[in-house]
Amino acid sequence: MVKNVTTILASGVFDLLHYGHIKFLEEAKKHGGPGAKLVVIVARDETVMKLKGKPPIIPEDQRRALVEALEVVDEALLGFEELDLEAVIERIKPDVIAVGHDQNDIEVWTRDIVAEKGLELRVVKIGRFGKEDLNSSSKIKGKIISDWR
Amino acid sequence: MVKNVTTILASGVFDLLHYGHIKFLEEAKKHGGPGAKLVVIVARDETVMKLKGKPPIIPEDQRRALVEALEVVDEALLGFEELDLEAVIERIKPDVIAVGHDQNDIEVWTRDIVAEKGLELRVVKIGRFGKEDLNSSSKIKGKIISDWR
Repeated sequence: MVKNVTTILASGVFDLLHYGHIKFLEEAKKHGGPGAKLVVIVARDETVMKLKGKPPIIPEDQRRALVEALEVVDEALLGFEELDLEAVIERIKPDVIAVGHDQNDIEVWTRDIVAEKGLELRVVKIGRFGKEDLNSSSKIKGKIISDWR
Repeated sequence: MVKNVTTILASGVFDLLHYGHIKFLEEAKKHGGPGAKLVVIVARDETVMKLKGKPPIIPEDQRRALVEALEVVDEALLGFEELDLEAVIERIKPDVIAVGHDQNDIEVWTRDIVAEKGLELRVVKIGRFGKEDLNSSSKIKGKIISDWR
């Protein structure tokens, strides 16, 4: 069977959605060429809690709904409770996995699985966009706090 | 000339984009029926500064780009420097103007202009969505600050 649609997989927390997120997702989708499908895995609150030691500001259901409301996104799914990357790849069957400039752990982890399983998929790293202010959730939080003080 | 497409106009600051914004815009667009076009006016930093005494967290260009990246939105424009509602109506020529539950000033202002000029357009008020947490930018800011303290 010939597969006609290229599927791109991207993932992230997407707490306090900002313009850097949009650019990341748009750039990721370009790697699939015309008609590509972009599936986004939105990290669960519990996963963020484990990785960063504190939960995101916005709950998982709202983060997922907001990402799915973006024109560039075809489908947004919550991650598996245990952030099982192999299970995600098996389910989505992506042709391309896009990782962000600050997703080094996910990049290494993905490349390991791809090599180990001999999967036919490309891993692409998306650059950071501009040096603008407020292109990260933590900078946005910082500004809110400094305004308040 | 028969006008085929119904144009809905909505407006707001859209600082810290959240799920309540998406619901507002989706609900607004429904008032135009199938094939409606949704145009959103995003308030300029200077306008927010004048109305609220402080600027938004996210600069106007990024707020506009984020709103335009939403699937439900056909076009997002920055407001006029002086928030000239008449000029906006003249330019967009909306069939429907949607106002949010917390946009009473804009509602009154719009209804006045419509009555005064005898314009053929409907003004619809969109309800608040749910009693969920974090469906407003100020609640999100509050949570960020209380987490930090």
